[in-house]
Amino acid sequence: MALDDIETPFGGVRGAVGGAGTYAALAASLLAPVRLTGIVGEDFPASALADLASRGIDLGGVEIVPGGRSFRWGGRYHFDMNTRETLYTDLGVFANFSPELPLGWADTPFVFLANIQPQLQYHVLSQIRSPRFVMADTMDLWIKSERQALLDLLRRVDVLLVNDAELRQLSQEHNLTVAAARVLDYGPRYVVIKKGEYGAALVWRDGHFAIPALPLPDVVDPTGAGDTFAGGMIGMLAWLGDTSEAALRQALVVGTAAASLCVQDFGIEALKKVTVAHLYERYETLRAMTTFAPCPLHV
Amino acid sequence: MALDDIETPFGGVRGAVGGAGTYAALAASLLAPVRLTGIVGEDFPASALADLASRGIDLGGVEIVPGGRSFRWGGRYHFDMNTRETLYTDLGVFANFSPELPLGWADTPFVFLANIQPQLQYHVLSQIRSPRFVMADTMDLWIKSERQALLDLLRRVDVLLVNDAELRQLSQEHNLTVAAARVLDYGPRYVVIKKGEYGAALVWRDGHFAIPALPLPDVVDPTGAGDTFAGGMIGMLAWLGDTSEAALRQALVVGTAAASLCVQDFGIEALKKVTVAHLYERYETLRAMTTFAPCPLHV
Repeated sequence: MALDDIETPFGGVRGAVGGAGTYAALAASLLAPVRLTGIVGEDFPASALADLASRGIDLGGVEIVPGGRSFRWGGRYHFDMNTRETLYTDLGVFANFSPELPLGWADTPFVFLANIQPQLQYHVLSQIRSPRFVMADTMDLWIKSERQALLDLLRRVDVLLVNDAELRQLSQEHNLTVAAARVLDYGPRYVVIKKGEYGAALVWRDGHFAIPALPLPDVVDPTGAGDTFAGGMIGMLAWLGDTSEAALRQALVVGTAAASLCVQDFGIEALKKVTVAHLYERYETLRAMTTFAPCPLHV
Repeated sequence: MALDDIETPFGGVRGAVGGAGTYAALAASLLAPVRLTGIVGEDFPASALADLASRGIDLGGVEIVPGGRSFRWGGRYHFDMNTRETLYTDLGVFANFSPELPLGWADTPFVFLANIQPQLQYHVLSQIRSPRFVMADTMDLWIKSERQALLDLLRRVDVLLVNDAELRQLSQEHNLTVAAARVLDYGPRYVVIKKGEYGAALVWRDGHFAIPALPLPDVVDPTGAGDTFAGGMIGMLAWLGDTSEAALRQALVVGTAAASLCVQDFGIEALKKVTVAHLYERYETLRAMTTFAPCPLHV
């Protein structure tokens, strides 16, 4: 959970409520009850917490540190809106975060471990008795500096979410197909490759699923798109009560739909207004966009 | 039609038979009779011409210049195999090329204008009485230096094929969705956006179709992939005898299948061995890779 300063070539915001947990929880809450763990300082707007609670998000795992300062991130998007630079990160109360779940949360079936240090992700996961399905995100920093902790985590994860560069870095393989196969050897049953404006792919031992991004005339702010995607995914799996390959395909489509809605305003503003009807509409747009007839060639 | 010197991080070839017309004709010839126009010098291997003829490609439009030197291109691929630099181009006989079609070719129904100066593309097209369907490729050089000639051509074209950068350059719009809409205003009914390892998209006034590339563990040489894609596309439209939006979707899938086969060896070596059975198999792999169930969310 964070407060973000975001600059794009077309405008920006300062101190916007954000953070991976916030985006993912908002997206998932459209489809399933959500329990959120995180940490904020006294500067985190009470109204934002009330907004999350009003969406049925249980904030019992959110620690509010009196006198503390929330994690802050500043980022600037380049003209193509697909690459960004981090201007600063200010850890604040996050520096001493040790996520402790309420005891009653040990039965949580669907778990999304948003991007934090892999040791903390592992610590969260250890507090859940026998999760049905676990998804984890990570980043270049941890792949480089906490590789062994990340590998330890991956043995207990069903899905790892990465982008192209992270996949290459983690696997030390250039070809993405070979790279994904290697990461499957580390433990996850699935690798999700997030490709930004080019969509996403799901790779498992025997197959591959790909979904393009929705073409949008108005990308305002890509911040949180990946977390919204993950939140939509795990929310859909929980809604379906199914973790089959067919369910995962549907979950990737819902994630793509949610992410496409997220990027059409700054921060969480668009996401706050999203309904299930919006997800349905974009899901079916994606289906129309990707459907084609069987091969008629005679062989 | 060209002789190529190709360098990749994993090997290379010198003087390999290539050229947009060669790749496109080879791919299209799997599905329909092909008429090829182009120009070569005396250095172009007679065996390569015999290979093309043996595939049922009519070489009646190919000019062989005695004592002349074929167009030569040298390119180097970077480590990601998705970007390349041109090391040199040597126009040779191409410098004075004025493509003249045999008189009997005026009835050709499906026309692919591979990447040459737009004036020459226009000249070829003018020799065909009332083509049923016209596709054209182009490049950054012509968009910059021959913009008006290209715009003149676009008024007579059904499909323009471009990559992301060319689409932005031609439309002078950054957002690809807005950019494609602007190019449709120039005349074509469809824009095909070629995205290399990220697949391809078809954009028309009211909609959008997207197909991912096949994930390949062994990309050897991307040279000619775009031309093979275009050749597979127009070959499939001719095979279907249909230019509806549904047929174009299928044509993009066949083009993607053909391109995926092309890149698995240097130059035209892989393409020479491709059969309709290979296209069928990859088409159905792409269908399995992109299929998902209707949206079950209640709205």
